[in-house]
Amino acid sequence: MRILGLDPSLSSTGWGVIETENNRVHYVADGFIPTEPKLPIAERLTLINETLRKVIETYKPNEAAIEQVFLNANPSSTMRLCMARGVVIMTPAQYGISVTEYEPNKVKKAVVGVGKAAKNQVETMVKILLPGCKPKNNDASDALAIALCHFQYRRDYGLKK
Amino acid sequence: MRILGLDPSLSSTGWGVIETENNRVHYVADGFIPTEPKLPIAERLTLINETLRKVIETYKPNEAAIEQVFLNANPSSTMRLCMARGVVIMTPAQYGISVTEYEPNKVKKAVVGVGKAAKNQVETMVKILLPGCKPKNNDASDALAIALCHFQYRRDYGLKK
Repeated sequence: MRILGLDPSLSSTGWGVIETENNRVHYVADGFIPTEPKLPIAERLTLINETLRKVIETYKPNEAAIEQVFLNANPSSTMRLCMARGVVIMTPAQYGISVTEYEPNKVKKAVVGVGKAAKNQVETMVKILLPGCKPKNNDASDALAIALCHFQYRRDYGLKK
Repeated sequence: MRILGLDPSLSSTGWGVIETENNRVHYVADGFIPTEPKLPIAERLTLINETLRKVIETYKPNEAAIEQVFLNANPSSTMRLCMARGVVIMTPAQYGISVTEYEPNKVKKAVVGVGKAAKNQVETMVKILLPGCKPKNNDASDALAIALCHFQYRRDYGLKK
């Protein structure tokens, strides 16, 4: 089974695909979707949707997973993040692919073992859990961590969170 | 020229189409997109996107307009609104249609004459400015008001806001 992990943001949405077979998992692909800040927001969101559609059509994931977000202190960056998140969570659903949401500390706990792990700890563990994988950047590595989190919840709790 | 006005929300996105000819304007169509609260958010967003695509393919607007939003006191409803807004502002851009954003008080001022108008005042003025139009609900009437606001800004200021 293939899992697509998604780490949404307007400027650079990360994505990562892993393949699971029984209790084993291996790396398939990862990447990020940079968008030009000067472009209108509607065009940046269209680019995110179009690129993610190509990712889905290329790697044909069976399920998807995404991080939950929380409001931060900056209202306008929160709004931009949530707008991107709306487009990102919708795109797998356009293909009938279910999307499971995980809190950020659940993702870190699943991958690193503690809920308050630093970004570089997440990347280090992603590389250990997925041998041969060299994430393209932090957004791609976070997306792979979200996919790994979904794999572990499926395996250990039968999809219950 | 046809203008599509959009009033996004996860539970009921309003839309309205008007046609302009020189300095005159008339009503074309309006509606709203209710989504079932029990469905996963990704499916609700997909329904909004699919329905808006049908609206665009049916009425072929040349330009679109949408209200700007501000964070409110409830973080989770703000996030849902912004996620819906991301999908709504992206959909015309998928067809190469530009989307102009207007602050809520600009929309009210354009239609009613004052920035702090009540919802029923907006609806009353929409009916006066668009003879023969009976908006399907408040969301549809707000969407028509946004389209009218865009028409007035185009006419009076040559698209500058």
